[in-house]
Amino acid sequence: MAPVEKAERGNRPGEFALIEEVFAPLASGAEGAFALKDDAALYRVEDGCETILTVDAIVAGIHFLSDDPAESVARKLLRVNLSDLAAKGAVPKGYLLVTAWADDTTFDWIKRFAAGLADDQKRYGVSLWGGDTVKTPGPLTLSLTAIGEVPIGGMILRGGARPGDDIYVTGTLGDAALGLEVLKGRLSGLGHEDADWLVRRYREPEPRCSLGPRLRGLVHAGLDVSDGLLADLGHICETSGTGARIEKDRLPLSAAAKMALRQNETLFPLIAGGGDDYEILFAAPPEKGNEIEAAAGEASVRATKIGRVTGPDEGVTLVDGAGHAIPLKQLGYSHF
Amino acid sequence: MAPVEKAERGNRPGEFALIEEVFAPLASGAEGAFALKDDAALYRVEDGCETILTVDAIVAGIHFLSDDPAESVARKLLRVNLSDLAAKGAVPKGYLLVTAWADDTTFDWIKRFAAGLADDQKRYGVSLWGGDTVKTPGPLTLSLTAIGEVPIGGMILRGGARPGDDIYVTGTLGDAALGLEVLKGRLSGLGHEDADWLVRRYREPEPRCSLGPRLRGLVHAGLDVSDGLLADLGHICETSGTGARIEKDRLPLSAAAKMALRQNETLFPLIAGGGDDYEILFAAPPEKGNEIEAAAGEASVRATKIGRVTGPDEGVTLVDGAGHAIPLKQLGYSHF
Repeated sequence: MAPVEKAERGNRPGEFALIEEVFAPLASGAEGAFALKDDAALYRVEDGCETILTVDAIVAGIHFLSDDPAESVARKLLRVNLSDLAAKGAVPKGYLLVTAWADDTTFDWIKRFAAGLADDQKRYGVSLWGGDTVKTPGPLTLSLTAIGEVPIGGMILRGGARPGDDIYVTGTLGDAALGLEVLKGRLSGLGHEDADWLVRRYREPEPRCSLGPRLRGLVHAGLDVSDGLLADLGHICETSGTGARIEKDRLPLSAAAKMALRQNETLFPLIAGGGDDYEILFAAPPEKGNEIEAAAGEASVRATKIGRVTGPDEGVTLVDGAGHAIPLKQLGYSHF
Repeated sequence: MAPVEKAERGNRPGEFALIEEVFAPLASGAEGAFALKDDAALYRVEDGCETILTVDAIVAGIHFLSDDPAESVARKLLRVNLSDLAAKGAVPKGYLLVTAWADDTTFDWIKRFAAGLADDQKRYGVSLWGGDTVKTPGPLTLSLTAIGEVPIGGMILRGGARPGDDIYVTGTLGDAALGLEVLKGRLSGLGHEDADWLVRRYREPEPRCSLGPRLRGLVHAGLDVSDGLLADLGHICETSGTGARIEKDRLPLSAAAKMALRQNETLFPLIAGGGDDYEILFAAPPEKGNEIEAAAGEASVRATKIGRVTGPDEGVTLVDGAGHAIPLKQLGYSHF
């Protein structure tokens, strides 16, 4: 679309040059992207499959810190979307990218951003298929539409959990929320290695693309943890018409998170309620336990049983080692 | 994604309430949208078809005026994307919406924005399938991913024009650019009716969805005019490896545009170079002329022959009634 006023050219190449120089190489793997020289992308789904679509937007200063490295911002943007696909059981295929550059976004930043995308494209087997690039007087704003595939009928939904299902989560919880505390200078006392690791977990989540498709047919419900474990478990329960009972002592923690909790146990709400984990949370019938374990092994992803789906009357409950419910308010947790 | 800092709640409902109250009704027509209660949309392409994807972003103050009515902003956002699909020969199916609300975006504005989308959904037969909603300290920023379908192999591309093809454009040219001049107070002297009509053409383009799919198999190349006739014709020529010769006197003008030009002929560059027309520009072999005329008749869309595709050496040329080339520089035209 033409801008309302003709813009002065800033410290960056114009839109067309930027696309050709920096972004077209990211599209070279996809025939239907037409080297970003057409108006739309062409995509043909595999026979017997259907398409899963998801989109997420991030704004500088809100969803990432203005001084986060460009490569990390790129990876996070792509990965949060790939994480949604993985949790739905989908194999990622491609993506569309919308960039609204801020006045102070430099050409160097954009090139590093594209380099971050290039790395991850190889890692996850996706290509850039198209997009739009504009400028904004506001903060740098990015959004990404990810496209994946499942065999027809294979999508993993939020609804579908049944009382008696086991609840699992992949990886470890709370690292990203703790990493953000480190970045804000509110979590000191950790060794450099632990602190860096937590920051990395915040900046560069690990979408469980290797596991998600393997969970198709084994699980009743699933999603990725982005709002926080309890909030996202609440989404599953609400949609499924169930409750859930989670055992605090079973929550999988990284060594760095354990160290942080040992120094300050009031950080626990960040484990159960902090966002940005991008782990898959899923509910599966107990008889699928062995197969799930095998799938996790094949995918080289840790999956931990953390509780059980209950009837709807119980709501979402977190219990301590003695089986006593921990009031969610006590967790500083107010989303419900 | 969780925000870096917990936000104060402003004058709007929270994200979840907004989705449920205002946006979920827009998704009611699409099973695979799951009432916006899942993390991704599910989409199954029609047998024998493939998918066309396009995305456009608009920023308040850059791509639309801050006081444009909310309903118009919604329609323009959706229609510019539907226009891309139409020009590619695709039938629109659904869309994903990303909204970054500004601090001063009111709940009333959002409801009117959704009402504009609802109208157009009926008009064009599409549904909301999913999206993301965030807030921004910058200007209101919106982006929309549109999904359409063509029979396999039926996509109309930019490349493919051949010397000797006739060049057509739908509707009329320059109205939107003149409408923007009206809104900026730089074009007075027109009657209210003409002025209002031009403004409407700027705010609410008319995607040629009824014609686009009918052009499949008849045309060699096509796109929608968003950057301006000559720039977009340049895109076709560059991708096709051709030139083009356009007859100035054949350019289709609305009554309002004719009136504006009669009062001030220096406005002509806005006809040939102004953006936001969202008409389909296409190249077709002369032997398809009758079929194209018939297709345009069935679609109730005017399609005007404006010139011919030439060899690459000629570049893009605009000629006057005597066949003399009009220097593009003289048009104030500097995109090439």
